[in-house]
Amino acid sequence: MATTTLDLRAALDEVARDVDSRLAILLADPGDPRTSLYAAMRHAAIGGGKRLRPLLVFATARLFDVDRTCTGWVATALEAIHVYSLIHDDLPAMDDDDMRRGKPTVHKAFDEATAILAGDCLHALAFEILASPSTHPDPFVRSELILDLARASGPSGMAGGQMMDLEAERQVFDLPTVTRLQQMKTGALICAAVEAGAILGRVAPEGRTHLRGYAHDLGLAFQIADDLLDAEGEEAIAGKRLRKDKEAGKATFLSLLGVERAREQCRMLVNQAIEHLRDYGPEADLLRAIAAYVVERDR
Amino acid sequence: MATTTLDLRAALDEVARDVDSRLAILLADPGDPRTSLYAAMRHAAIGGGKRLRPLLVFATARLFDVDRTCTGWVATALEAIHVYSLIHDDLPAMDDDDMRRGKPTVHKAFDEATAILAGDCLHALAFEILASPSTHPDPFVRSELILDLARASGPSGMAGGQMMDLEAERQVFDLPTVTRLQQMKTGALICAAVEAGAILGRVAPEGRTHLRGYAHDLGLAFQIADDLLDAEGEEAIAGKRLRKDKEAGKATFLSLLGVERAREQCRMLVNQAIEHLRDYGPEADLLRAIAAYVVERDR
Repeated sequence: MATTTLDLRAALDEVARDVDSRLAILLADPGDPRTSLYAAMRHAAIGGGKRLRPLLVFATARLFDVDRTCTGWVATALEAIHVYSLIHDDLPAMDDDDMRRGKPTVHKAFDEATAILAGDCLHALAFEILASPSTHPDPFVRSELILDLARASGPSGMAGGQMMDLEAERQVFDLPTVTRLQQMKTGALICAAVEAGAILGRVAPEGRTHLRGYAHDLGLAFQIADDLLDAEGEEAIAGKRLRKDKEAGKATFLSLLGVERAREQCRMLVNQAIEHLRDYGPEADLLRAIAAYVVERDR
Repeated sequence: MATTTLDLRAALDEVARDVDSRLAILLADPGDPRTSLYAAMRHAAIGGGKRLRPLLVFATARLFDVDRTCTGWVATALEAIHVYSLIHDDLPAMDDDDMRRGKPTVHKAFDEATAILAGDCLHALAFEILASPSTHPDPFVRSELILDLARASGPSGMAGGQMMDLEAERQVFDLPTVTRLQQMKTGALICAAVEAGAILGRVAPEGRTHLRGYAHDLGLAFQIADDLLDAEGEEAIAGKRLRKDKEAGKATFLSLLGVERAREQCRMLVNQAIEHLRDYGPEADLLRAIAAYVVERDR
């Protein structure tokens, strides 16, 4: 377990360096009146975050010996979508957060208008990356990656889940509705990251069942762990404000299940996620380590 | 000229009906806690607006005998991007507008959080439409359409232009900078609409020069006409607040050129746009009518 943790830390660091270097190229100061727009994007996207979604792209693509440059750009697109969603979710009209990844949020470090536009730009950039022939030479693969990401981030995925999350402050949801909300809000993009690795590996949709099962269970486990962290974590380590769900009186896995059953459910989902990988050999050890990390993480 | 105006009106109405019927399918009430998100998208996207960008897709695709269903979906994607940008531009942190297309803006009719998410969702939906095999069977065409739209709407296009527009309230731009700002803010998406028609027509990039020239001149003429409308138009007809540029003390074509020279420049650009179409026969009459309409429009 100690070795795996070490490997995972090394893998996370490597992916962070890889994605950061690509973002630094894309988001270089244009030297014109858009300077603060680009600075805002760099502030939000470079040098922070767990980089879980890009790592999932790499860890899945590794199963199929995919070219690392292709994988790097696709991982960067996934992270760009994730960062855009964080910028918009942090806005005063949404979750109204001041800190993110241990730094002031974009609308605090810059202003609201710049934050809205920086999010919009990262959103468009993700699709520009995926549609570029230099990312992948096969237009069929590019088109499949884009469909995967657009569905996962739109009204039936991440943004739709965020809307349900806003509604959760106005009405009390039951467990199936909370599960669906979280599957959309966080799970869909985690699934899209794994799916992107499989698309890059040219796995046909019918061959992706086990990987989808892994991603689905991982996404839910991740969200329960997030709820536990929100209730029990330390703000200094998490790098963001905690105890928000309770303040807002929102129904969460935690409020519906209680701490003990939530923790148990999280462990069960992680084991189930790992079990989906039984047909893979040591090449899937990184995916297994990611699942194990989810229950243990402190941020 | 009277006939052309009549044809144009008929074409605009037909495109509006076509795009509205597709949007009605995509944005149907999901019957779950996302109801108001979908209502907000329908409020902004259906039954309003000039539909200039979708019409440009249709008018260009008509030159090459493209399948109308393909064209309709691509036109809908262009309109979805345009509407998302209007929703976000109208937000209090941006242009802070209460009226749009003769109706309350989304954040007025719903709330700010819903407006941000409705914009984000239309943004993602545009790419989902373009990446769907049912929109176009050839992944190369889909991928080219997506690259076209992502570039035109991102930091080097529409959103970057909007950022420059915000900066224009803080610094005084000269004519070349205002031209670049407007080319990005409004011109890029108008160019993308024409380019999309050419991509659907399978015109190779080197064969698109004249159409690009047309779109470029049309975009600038459109913006100058918009400036004139902002200064001289009637709010009731325009369906939105006017005289904003002057209040904000922004450098515009109008403030830099004066009314007479601006009007002259607009006419010159329209003639130049039409001149780019000289190699095309009557099949390009709709594109010519659109250019002529730009100088005459009252909203």
